[in-house]
Amino acid sequence: MSRKIITLTSDFGMKDPYVAEMKAAVLGIYPEATLIDISHEIEKFNIQMGAYILSAATDYFPKGTIHVAVVDPGVGTRRRSILIQTKQDFLIGPDNGVLILAAERAGIEHVYEISNPCFMLPVISSTFHGRDIFAPVAAHLAKGVVALEVGPEVKEFVRPEFTRILRGKESIVGKVLHLDGFGNIITNITKAQISSLALCSQLDIKLSGRKVRLKFCKTYGEAKPAELLALIGSHGYLEMAVNQSSAAEKFEVKLGDKIKVLLPQKS
Amino acid sequence: MSRKIITLTSDFGMKDPYVAEMKAAVLGIYPEATLIDISHEIEKFNIQMGAYILSAATDYFPKGTIHVAVVDPGVGTRRRSILIQTKQDFLIGPDNGVLILAAERAGIEHVYEISNPCFMLPVISSTFHGRDIFAPVAAHLAKGVVALEVGPEVKEFVRPEFTRILRGKESIVGKVLHLDGFGNIITNITKAQISSLALCSQLDIKLSGRKVRLKFCKTYGEAKPAELLALIGSHGYLEMAVNQSSAAEKFEVKLGDKIKVLLPQKS
Amino acid sequence: MSRKIITLTSDFGMKDPYVAEMKAAVLGIYPEATLIDISHEIEKFNIQMGAYILSAATDYFPKGTIHVAVVDPGVGTRRRSILIQTKQDFLIGPDNGVLILAAERAGIEHVYEISNPCFMLPVISSTFHGRDIFAPVAAHLAKGVVALEVGPEVKEFVRPEFTRILRGKESIVGKVLHLDGFGNIITNITKAQISSLALCSQLDIKLSGRKVRLKFCKTYGEAKPAELLALIGSHGYLEMAVNQSSAAEKFEVKLGDKIKVLLPQKS
Repeated sequence: MSRKIITLTSDFGMKDPYVAEMKAAVLGIYPEATLIDISHEIEKFNIQMGAYILSAATDYFPKGTIHVAVVDPGVGTRRRSILIQTKQDFLIGPDNGVLILAAERAGIEHVYEISNPCFMLPVISSTFHGRDIFAPVAAHLAKGVVALEVGPEVKEFVRPEFTRILRGKESIVGKVLHLDGFGNIITNITKAQISSLALCSQLDIKLSGRKVRLKFCKTYGEAKPAELLALIGSHGYLEMAVNQSSAAEKFEVKLGDKIKVLLPQKS
Repeated sequence: MSRKIITLTSDFGMKDPYVAEMKAAVLGIYPEATLIDISHEIEKFNIQMGAYILSAATDYFPKGTIHVAVVDPGVGTRRRSILIQTKQDFLIGPDNGVLILAAERAGIEHVYEISNPCFMLPVISSTFHGRDIFAPVAAHLAKGVVALEVGPEVKEFVRPEFTRILRGKESIVGKVLHLDGFGNIITNITKAQISSLALCSQLDIKLSGRKVRLKFCKTYGEAKPAELLALIGSHGYLEMAVNQSSAAEKFEVKLGDKIKVLLPQKS
Repeated sequence: MSRKIITLTSDFGMKDPYVAEMKAAVLGIYPEATLIDISHEIEKFNIQMGAYILSAATDYFPKGTIHVAVVDPGVGTRRRSILIQTKQDFLIGPDNGVLILAAERAGIEHVYEISNPCFMLPVISSTFHGRDIFAPVAAHLAKGVVALEVGPEVKEFVRPEFTRILRGKESIVGKVLHLDGFGNIITNITKAQISSLALCSQLDIKLSGRKVRLKFCKTYGEAKPAELLALIGSHGYLEMAVNQSSAAEKFEVKLGDKIKVLLPQKS
């Protein structure tokens, strides 16, 4: 049997021992795990950003990978813990939307509410379910436990707003999903949703109260240094960028800001 | 034989190649190692913070894990290198207190002064014992070398002040051990030390020259957003927190600050 | 067959999913990989810093290790992708100089232009060759593919300026290669290049327009706290440091600044 991959995504940062404690909990149950960090620099409590980062990475992992995501402002309250089985992988975390983008992208098959204490640590703290519940469940799953043993199947789960876009005749309205470390502005508008614009060399957008016309490129390098551009990023979402500089600073945008793409009108 | 776990804790940060060099030194000797980072974002030269972070994580690792910790302002001077064998694990690092909280928590069995050059890299730089001494010793230990081969057993080692608390009739006085990435203030006062207050719903504390009355909660979620609270954190230490915000900023505390918990007086 | 080591170096940072995507691409092809991060905190697009960090770490890895480095301002343009086979290891990345310090240190044997699509992901984005080309090529190499299958051998490749120093009768002029997390100033002047000064107890240097006389130490601990010193660091380069403080702040230097070491003149 080959070693299973377990990935971790959280808003814990790298300074504190929290990530290591989750890994310790996994290794205590399943020592063969290949543990991969997706990111622990999610903005504290920013579920939308966690959902985006997770979904961007999951696509590339082998079938059967187990992903644990912990962005969990409601830890210790009555929010549920869930395991989502998709056509591609397993997703484990709080039922607050952090798993949803990755789940929908891979195709949801079953959702289970995690409730079987056999697969948790013996003592459950009220502040750290990542270590006490999610990591041990991931390890047991990697070890061979079948998904439906972790708890009852559920039909409803939290679906947040941030995946939806508004499509009109004159425009498509989406949101800023993420600002990456290069200052690129990543939106929730997908390649498919603007396929009609694929051949355009320019894009008119409205962002931060400003209307701008951008070069619509295939690659960052097509634009001159400091030139504004739009492109479909490597995860299939519409991005705004400034070649070798920060678009996020130039536009003064923040997460969740509205972005409007103006559709060319036949005259 | 299953793959041994070697963990690394340091103040090296993630920008520089130092952590990778330690891992390279391990893998050159023991290629099967499961290498886990606890934290490399310890404040530069802050032994107390290193000791806390290490001790918070070690509890959760399987028996036999080998922990290396390098917060080492005295590298290149005459401070000793030690290996501590506890009831639970092995701890390797400079003899300056960075191992002590984790060691005492797990139960010290033997302490050895690392001196046998067979288990070090051939060339020892005077500035980087993490790579040249600690990592290779950890790798040899994982490979099967017995602890007493690394050097003579010693009876004395550095015991810093930061584990002690002052218990009076009217108060318990401790210190701020750590400010975590969520802005939670973690003290060196343990659950056992304030067990008499377990049923209280409020706690009176003095911190940063201010006397405040805090809600004493089981979980962060019990308080309203922005409300101050006290709770026993997931590592068993008394913490001060602000639900979904930073207590460290609110109190303007820094590492090492004194905290006084006022005991209720019978009248 | 033992598990091969693949290291990753980049300017991607730890917040975004990019590093995890590269690891996913490796594991999809070669699940047994031992994946080690050297650093992902290279300054964006700073090829010189990436080259230094990579070269500092590679020395310590076992023979046959495969190193991938992605600092790649020209991604999507016509810059080539290369694989360098040295006497010690394999280096994979863009042909822009980021591999050069590590390659020359280990001894270059062959350089290949990566062009065989069999060893890349099926879809190559124009913005992320780290995931779509470099990581898969590394994984195939680890799996047993021989180097010359990735593409034709090439004789020329980009050699940047930053390895060169200027040696005169009165001085040696080099550059600031890197400012590490402790604030140490690391130059491109090697131990061998100033071997004539080995017995000096002082060094006269010119940096940031200031001429200073520094204690020439073997270890940081030899100097008093806050005292300026020069020493040969653990990677064999001349460094300027302030014991337990930041030399970079004290000198107000930045990457690439000129440093002049004045040679003692016979009178």
